Amino acid sequence: MNADTTHFNCSITDGIATISLDRPDRKNPLTFDSYAELRDWFRDLHYDDDVKAVVFASNGGNFSSGGDVHDIIGPLTKMNMKELLRFTRMTGDLVKAMVNCGKPIIAAIDGICVGAGAIIAMASDLRIATPEAKVAFLFTRVGLAGCDMGACAILPRIIGQGRTADLLYTGRSMSADEGAAWGFHNKVVPAEELDGAALKLAEQIAAGPNFGHMITKTMLAQEWSMSIEQAIEAEAQAQAICMQTGDFERAYRAFVAKERPVFEGD
Amino acid sequence: MNADTTHFNCSITDGIATISLDRPDRKNPLTFDSYAELRDWFRDLHYDDDVKAVVFASNGGNFSSGGDVHDIIGPLTKMNMKELLRFTRMTGDLVKAMVNCGKPIIAAIDGICVGAGAIIAMASDLRIATPEAKVAFLFTRVGLAGCDMGACAILPRIIGQGRTADLLYTGRSMSADEGAAWGFHNKVVPAEELDGAALKLAEQIAAGPNFGHMITKTMLAQEWSMSIEQAIEAEAQAQAICMQTGDFERAYRAFVAKERPVFEGD
Amino acid sequence: MNADTTHFNCSITDGIATISLDRPDRKNPLTFDSYAELRDWFRDLHYDDDVKAVVFASNGGNFSSGGDVHDIIGPLTKMNMKELLRFTRMTGDLVKAMVNCGKPIIAAIDGICVGAGAIIAMASDLRIATPEAKVAFLFTRVGLAGCDMGACAILPRIIGQGRTADLLYTGRSMSADEGAAWGFHNKVVPAEELDGAALKLAEQIAAGPNFGHMITKTMLAQEWSMSIEQAIEAEAQAQAICMQTGDFERAYRAFVAKERPVFEGD
Repeated sequence: MNADTTHFNCSITDGIATISLDRPDRKNPLTFDSYAELRDWFRDLHYDDDVKAVVFASNGGNFSSGGDVHDIIGPLTKMNMKELLRFTRMTGDLVKAMVNCGKPIIAAIDGICVGAGAIIAMASDLRIATPEAKVAFLFTRVGLAGCDMGACAILPRIIGQGRTADLLYTGRSMSADEGAAWGFHNKVVPAEELDGAALKLAEQIAAGPNFGHMITKTMLAQEWSMSIEQAIEAEAQAQAICMQTGDFERAYRAFVAKERPVFEGD
Repeated sequence: MNADTTHFNCSITDGIATISLDRPDRKNPLTFDSYAELRDWFRDLHYDDDVKAVVFASNGGNFSSGGDVHDIIGPLTKMNMKELLRFTRMTGDLVKAMVNCGKPIIAAIDGICVGAGAIIAMASDLRIATPEAKVAFLFTRVGLAGCDMGACAILPRIIGQGRTADLLYTGRSMSADEGAAWGFHNKVVPAEELDGAALKLAEQIAAGPNFGHMITKTMLAQEWSMSIEQAIEAEAQAQAICMQTGDFERAYRAFVAKERPVFEGD
Repeated sequence: MNADTTHFNCSITDGIATISLDRPDRKNPLTFDSYAELRDWFRDLHYDDDVKAVVFASNGGNFSSGGDVHDIIGPLTKMNMKELLRFTRMTGDLVKAMVNCGKPIIAAIDGICVGAGAIIAMASDLRIATPEAKVAFLFTRVGLAGCDMGACAILPRIIGQGRTADLLYTGRSMSADEGAAWGFHNKVVPAEELDGAALKLAEQIAAGPNFGHMITKTMLAQEWSMSIEQAIEAEAQAQAICMQTGDFERAYRAFVAKERPVFEGD
């Protein structure tokens, strides 16, 4: 997996990719280039076997200020419909690529996390925040609708329809306490412990079973709009596949030997 | 928009419609007539451009006691199936009309809010309650099922399937504290602050962008049973439409000029 | 309804069936036989009119340790795909049978409640736990995916997608406090009060209206992946059916007479 990225930071160590947006002086805005490169990077990740988990980190005390007003919003106000749709599909494709990449993504959220930054946090699988984390879906503040990059579908499934309506109509910040109480943040830790907590969780997940985790991630998305009966049949098939992996047998043997299983990912 | 209603109270000021059920001496029951008039009023609202937000208020310390036992339940026990279905479709059509009206609805809930009253609160977008608010989906207490006017679909998306089952099988009251903890109420305020808090939130929403809010409301319902991929494509299209509104450009210009944007709704 | 079961405990009194898994010395594991017998028992329950509610109880301080490592996991590691799919479909069929049985199921959860045991708790309608309850979807610990018996579809609708991801990727225990705060447990009571609390709730539900409860349970599953419009029409039909039951008229008459209604289930 390519760690030599141009428009965002990336390092890969022991199967864990840590990425973050750049330009901390401007609270790490997204640009046309970073959107596109992130989309491509997560698409490539779908076919990669070396990276087992991703930490989407903060940088310089903030997660992201979202689409840059000068670099993105200004040009958007001058585009025709064909160009606009090309842009909104590109941003949506980033969320699709994150959902489909097959590896759990942990967002480590400090400070400002707004607009498309809040969407990236939402599209991650797990979220750890600091008490200073301010997450705002502020599209309404720039004259737009709350339905950006999947927010009207995904956010209600995380925090419920009522709280989603509050955040999307007002554009207000969700505090760290609210995020934890509402099920958006899985954990809140002091800022100095954020990177460590995210890394520890990533290591736990990277220890596997990675084939199983990939199937879990696949099915959490796949069953989104299935009936209960369809979902149960889909899981019967998906879990039967997992039961033919070596990791299932490794876990069984380790249990019988009273040892800790070592997963190999196949 | 017509404020001269017969079977419920209505006043419209500065783009905000405030409506409430009548007969506070009987805790504001619904009747066949008020159901029908509310349905028609919300259907008309879909085509209206002057009302930007709706407050569904309490009246005399209570929200609503639901379908009146004497005026509604008695006659229902004597109807044939064709007549019953005409009634249950009319009540369901009220929820559909609220969901499709295109303007955010804030329920301001004091005291008794039960049966069809609880459904009206549930079908609103945002809910502010007083500590005295008692919300009960008490259909089971009158010998019916909990599946009334969309409750088995909508309530689980607000408070989860487990808490929904509790309320629908037992018919018990949800307290204000429970409602706030579960994500049903967005806020709890003292009774004397209820109308003010609802109005303030309505004013904030009415300040726009109203086209954006209409699209947000549309998509929150539209994406209900879409797959994630379908929802993201639907939002790419919906948000591209919003990017061609004047309000998007007004927000950008205001930002550049370091001013507060004034939205005009187109 | 048959109370003379072989592979799990069952007693039926006053319309309430109380069942529990056996072998408390091994924390009540599931076996191939108990899976199959439970599936068949819940399938039969669909056609039964005498049992009104089910308590799925703990036994000896624990709910269930899930699929037995020696009796189930060992043999699974030696099966071919056809045999594996037969097994995963059988376990999924247990959840389908619970969802379709038409009677509310109350899980009374003490101590260990893991793996397929956690799934049985999840597939119940209501959950009462003790402070000692430890619920873990630990499939990942045995090398498998979290998508077992409907978990990736059902658990997110109870506790949200974010908390579900935490539990399914890590396999960690959900504490009783977490379960209550997240909407998994409807109530937490001291261990010595668990059976009494579950029985009391079962009695309340068994008092009816049982036809209404059956329709509520049916619609909570049926509307899972409907659009809002479809759900409201489905409820208009379902509730119209309930309005032709005698229990609806009994409730009305009792109200007029200022008495407590006695439901008869038709």
